[in-house]
Amino acid sequence: MTEWTLHPDRALPADPTTRPVAREIYETTRDLPIVSMHGHVDVATFADDTPFPDPAGLFVVPDHYLTRMLVSQGTPLPALGVGPEGTPGLETDPRAIWRRFCAGWKHFRGTPTRYWLEHELVEIFGVTLRPSAETADTIYDQVAARLAEPGFRPRALLDQFRIETLATTDPAWSDLEQHQRLATELGSLTGGSAGLATPRVVPTFRPDPLLHLDQPAWRDDVARLAAASGTEVGDYAGYLAALRERRRAFVAAGGSATDHGHLGADTTPLPDDVAAALFARALAGDDVTAAEAAAFSAHMLFQMAAMSCEDGLVMQLHPGVLRNHDTERYATFGPDKGYDIPVVTEYTNALRPVLEAFGHTENFRMIVFTVDEDTYSRELAPLAGVYPALRLGAPWWFLDEPDAMRRFREAATGTAGFSNLSGFVDDTRAFCSIPARHDLARRIDAGYLARLVVEHRLDLDEAVDTAADLAYRLPKAAYPAPTP
Amino acid sequence: MTEWTLHPDRALPADPTTRPVAREIYETTRDLPIVSMHGHVDVATFADDTPFPDPAGLFVVPDHYLTRMLVSQGTPLPALGVGPEGTPGLETDPRAIWRRFCAGWKHFRGTPTRYWLEHELVEIFGVTLRPSAETADTIYDQVAARLAEPGFRPRALLDQFRIETLATTDPAWSDLEQHQRLATELGSLTGGSAGLATPRVVPTFRPDPLLHLDQPAWRDDVARLAAASGTEVGDYAGYLAALRERRRAFVAAGGSATDHGHLGADTTPLPDDVAAALFARALAGDDVTAAEAAAFSAHMLFQMAAMSCEDGLVMQLHPGVLRNHDTERYATFGPDKGYDIPVVTEYTNALRPVLEAFGHTENFRMIVFTVDEDTYSRELAPLAGVYPALRLGAPWWFLDEPDAMRRFREAATGTAGFSNLSGFVDDTRAFCSIPARHDLARRIDAGYLARLVVEHRLDLDEAVDTAADLAYRLPKAAYPAPTP
Amino acid sequence: MTEWTLHPDRALPADPTTRPVAREIYETTRDLPIVSMHGHVDVATFADDTPFPDPAGLFVVPDHYLTRMLVSQGTPLPALGVGPEGTPGLETDPRAIWRRFCAGWKHFRGTPTRYWLEHELVEIFGVTLRPSAETADTIYDQVAARLAEPGFRPRALLDQFRIETLATTDPAWSDLEQHQRLATELGSLTGGSAGLATPRVVPTFRPDPLLHLDQPAWRDDVARLAAASGTEVGDYAGYLAALRERRRAFVAAGGSATDHGHLGADTTPLPDDVAAALFARALAGDDVTAAEAAAFSAHMLFQMAAMSCEDGLVMQLHPGVLRNHDTERYATFGPDKGYDIPVVTEYTNALRPVLEAFGHTENFRMIVFTVDEDTYSRELAPLAGVYPALRLGAPWWFLDEPDAMRRFREAATGTAGFSNLSGFVDDTRAFCSIPARHDLARRIDAGYLARLVVEHRLDLDEAVDTAADLAYRLPKAAYPAPTP
Repeated sequence: MTEWTLHPDRALPADPTTRPVAREIYETTRDLPIVSMHGHVDVATFADDTPFPDPAGLFVVPDHYLTRMLVSQGTPLPALGVGPEGTPGLETDPRAIWRRFCAGWKHFRGTPTRYWLEHELVEIFGVTLRPSAETADTIYDQVAARLAEPGFRPRALLDQFRIETLATTDPAWSDLEQHQRLATELGSLTGGSAGLATPRVVPTFRPDPLLHLDQPAWRDDVARLAAASGTEVGDYAGYLAALRERRRAFVAAGGSATDHGHLGADTTPLPDDVAAALFARALAGDDVTAAEAAAFSAHMLFQMAAMSCEDGLVMQLHPGVLRNHDTERYATFGPDKGYDIPVVTEYTNALRPVLEAFGHTENFRMIVFTVDEDTYSRELAPLAGVYPALRLGAPWWFLDEPDAMRRFREAATGTAGFSNLSGFVDDTRAFCSIPARHDLARRIDAGYLARLVVEHRLDLDEAVDTAADLAYRLPKAAYPAPTP
Repeated sequence: MTEWTLHPDRALPADPTTRPVAREIYETTRDLPIVSMHGHVDVATFADDTPFPDPAGLFVVPDHYLTRMLVSQGTPLPALGVGPEGTPGLETDPRAIWRRFCAGWKHFRGTPTRYWLEHELVEIFGVTLRPSAETADTIYDQVAARLAEPGFRPRALLDQFRIETLATTDPAWSDLEQHQRLATELGSLTGGSAGLATPRVVPTFRPDPLLHLDQPAWRDDVARLAAASGTEVGDYAGYLAALRERRRAFVAAGGSATDHGHLGADTTPLPDDVAAALFARALAGDDVTAAEAAAFSAHMLFQMAAMSCEDGLVMQLHPGVLRNHDTERYATFGPDKGYDIPVVTEYTNALRPVLEAFGHTENFRMIVFTVDEDTYSRELAPLAGVYPALRLGAPWWFLDEPDAMRRFREAATGTAGFSNLSGFVDDTRAFCSIPARHDLARRIDAGYLARLVVEHRLDLDEAVDTAADLAYRLPKAAYPAPTP
Repeated sequence: MTEWTLHPDRALPADPTTRPVAREIYETTRDLPIVSMHGHVDVATFADDTPFPDPAGLFVVPDHYLTRMLVSQGTPLPALGVGPEGTPGLETDPRAIWRRFCAGWKHFRGTPTRYWLEHELVEIFGVTLRPSAETADTIYDQVAARLAEPGFRPRALLDQFRIETLATTDPAWSDLEQHQRLATELGSLTGGSAGLATPRVVPTFRPDPLLHLDQPAWRDDVARLAAASGTEVGDYAGYLAALRERRRAFVAAGGSATDHGHLGADTTPLPDDVAAALFARALAGDDVTAAEAAAFSAHMLFQMAAMSCEDGLVMQLHPGVLRNHDTERYATFGPDKGYDIPVVTEYTNALRPVLEAFGHTENFRMIVFTVDEDTYSRELAPLAGVYPALRLGAPWWFLDEPDAMRRFREAATGTAGFSNLSGFVDDTRAFCSIPARHDLARRIDAGYLARLVVEHRLDLDEAVDTAADLAYRLPKAAYPAPTP
């Protein structure tokens, strides 16, 4: 077998007229710093800066993109080390997990997981063998050796990856202590960024569980909110006050955004007294119907928008995913195990209340993501193309692979242009995949822009300028830091 | 800066094998006359033949594709000259409006507005500078000078643009006097067309407001209908008779089509007595529910189809757009200001009543448009591919940009072929964009056909023949002139 | 006119960098045997092995892809020989039918019918003239002469086409006698396949009419089921027992799959007593509402899945087509005449009951097809990418043309990979189109894989291996023969 390498032109268009132009554009964005304004890396990773565990613990066990594919091909989750202690068949030997993953390498062909892992293994870890049952052990040893080096600890990688800003996602009741510690320590660590007014790792306010009255843990979560905010939450007014207080704390800790993962995009407000009565019934432990809970969730999205107008936090909405499709696996393995499946999502009517109320409010910024591609050209680009407050987020989740990212550009640009987009966000919990994901996005964008140039729909200087917008300037501009 | 020019190969495929074939095909359609069977240029433009106003009044103020993009980037409508007299901040200096537009040129990158305007400015007005804050005044002066020349008056441009037929859109109560005047004057003006049996500028019957019982102005509009038709409209029978009479007048004035812009595509008829009772209640000023009004609208689409079977007017349906999404801006600025947003549209069930009743009626022709791309391959191509009466209209509104036009071909052709399409319609109120739009469509079609040739799915002679169908023969055939 | 030939590179990508790689990949799959695991060729074709009729009877009359296009252009079905005896205008001269078809050749441009017929006429029948009004008679004579040769009888063509396995579709009450006869005779006929444990032509269990309580013929069909199974069907338990018995018979006859063509994909089970009561009412001839009948159909899909867990028959689901859109034509001409139109289809919620219950059951395999492309990336690839039991079927019906097949790869692969697909199935009743369809699919797949190679997203050896999976190994693996 020849050496496993990354081709410098990977993911650039095949067409020989377009490729050199794409390469020229890509060269101008390749080394720009990474601004990662939406993701799910745990803040503890950086606060504690403990070395990453073994290769399986870094690459396989926590990555539901990866484990779901092996599950679909017949490997049960426990055989991949996933599951609570005591789960029958739970594999505890990381090398055995790694071997299963390498033996299944074929199944990732054509998927972005394959593309990202290839980038990570070759570029970051210097691997030169293609994964397979035969090469598994050699690769394992090589990656494990690297992980033991100081240069592979999380904070060091932040530098190696040229990450200028990284947003984490944090519960509304987070004490943000780790962020505050990081703000001090990373400043001195990195030198260059010490002069910045905002910290390098910033929190994102995610209140989802608090907004769904019918979730089993809702009352416990409200108690956490009350404790964290130092506010009594005995009624709806107290609840709003506590949320407002926590948002202030996030702003103070350098946060620039909220994030909302509802099933639908509905933002219809209820009359205040209706909302207050629903809240009171739920707090009293009385039954609330699913429809009432959904109406309250929609109402609270409207309230979150109203609060964003006050405090300047950018409002991110990620609707349209039915979580935990398999109830039994959810009970055994918990959330985020690959069983979240998209559904049809409606935006034109659903966002109307918020956009009519705040769509022209200067201090309001909303960024909407979708896993329903049809809505790009039909709803989201038309909406983002007129409402000043609205930006269309980057292709999300199942749509963050090369061909889907290209389709996004082709479907959204004609109506929204480039200026109404949020720029790339990686949305990942796999820290080491961040450079791979941003690099891939820059390559796809270079390819798309190159085609516009070669088709004489854009001049080259415009394409180069737009490429820098998409890779760097737009995410910075789309998530402005509120004034604490 | 180098001179701003149009590349002869613009919008042709990048691939070096396909491009020369595309160029060869495009050369055969480039100079074909324009048959513009669906659009919104005001008939008064030609009837009065007054010179166009300044550059801002021609290009910026009336074009909601353009103003919505600048609004989305923070420029309020009044700063672009849009709004009734007395609107706070209403800009009245056309040069100031033009400067704002040129300063925002960047935001149009990748949009069709950019593509069309570039064509218009360079090709029609001889502009050689790329718009920007710096070049705004020079371009303004150059365009303004041209607009003062006699060759740039509307009728002269009809000739320069090689427009063989142009359809306007007219209220059902229009007296059609301007069309009648034009039929005489344009005949003598153009020489060549004097021998034609149909006039060069033809009206289109648009009865929308009359079909929606719950619109505030409905009773006033019914009074207009009665007056225009010379028919008493005291009940449902009178209403139908008046509509029939007006359709006759449109046929007599050279009209070949009706146009219908409903929210949904439903065509389910009501029993006659139910329709008559609803009509009576609405005419009496009694409350009609939204559901009742929608049912009546659907019923009236069925009636319009039935009347088309009698009088031969082609029935055009443009559903699926939620008009005036922002209620407050609608109240201030009126309709057609960029706040119309598409919604999911269903056709398979919705069109069934009309297609079952008239889908095989020899004299009936229905052309359906969509802004919901998913329906191309799923519903509209399968329907148009079997019902003789149905033709699938060209990509419409948000879908009239290069990549969406290409997707339309790729999604619809496999099932509908080419013969079941209506050919290109520009659907524009921006008169000077008509040549740009038809030229772009011809280029995209040449590129698509060239790919079929290069992939050996079509012979070159067939591709050339099909290109002429799409550009010229199909729109003529799809909108046959009824015998008055 | 130059000779009509097939270009060796047809349907391969135009781009000069990608094409040679595509050609290299295609060469490795071109001559692989055909495994046709889902189709509608009548088993009698092979059981009786009677010569095919004239060219019109082979190519035109039974092919609703073809007749629907000519109907859409104004040729009534009877003029194409379609309709029961006595239909006004029913053409009985095959040569006249053939002439109408050839005269309409233009209308097939850009459609897969054109592509397949070209392949069949040139490759199988040696035609060298492009069809047209002028060439119709010559081609007719040439094809008719061939059809009289022994090498053009159905069984001989099975060999010529290199068909290793062919699945037919059979009613649940079929006596399977023809299959049993074929299993013996084809074994000795083909030599090579005599050693196989499964017969070469296998039945597929299609119980649709039995699962829809509200169809007029339902009680008659239940009587047929009872007779065929030798089971008394006096109640719901007897009905289930009879279905179970018939499935056993299909397994014994070499069947490997069931097939289900419901309007929606709903699989929600009813409580047993509710199902039993509904069944009893329907059997007694009492009225059952459409909603009740739909609930029973969904319930029975769940039961079919449960039975598949027992007997190992692969469960195929083909939802989302509204059959017989034109009621009057249905009454006159019967089903499968081109009037079946797709509708929006939902899978995420609809399949949840079956997937939660059996999605991880080792012996269960479900293959889902769609005519709603939006669901590839939004629902079906995400579902197939995690549930071991689920495979995503090949692009189906209106989506089996070159560009739609390419879109399928681009939309599904990123999330489902290749291993979660069923491989190509031709789903055709046009026997002679089988090699053309498989060849086309292999070309499109080669082109898609070549692009991944040229974009450095896949190595060439991986692409070649995947191409063989898609063309040959996956359909064999996706439809494993149950142990009888």
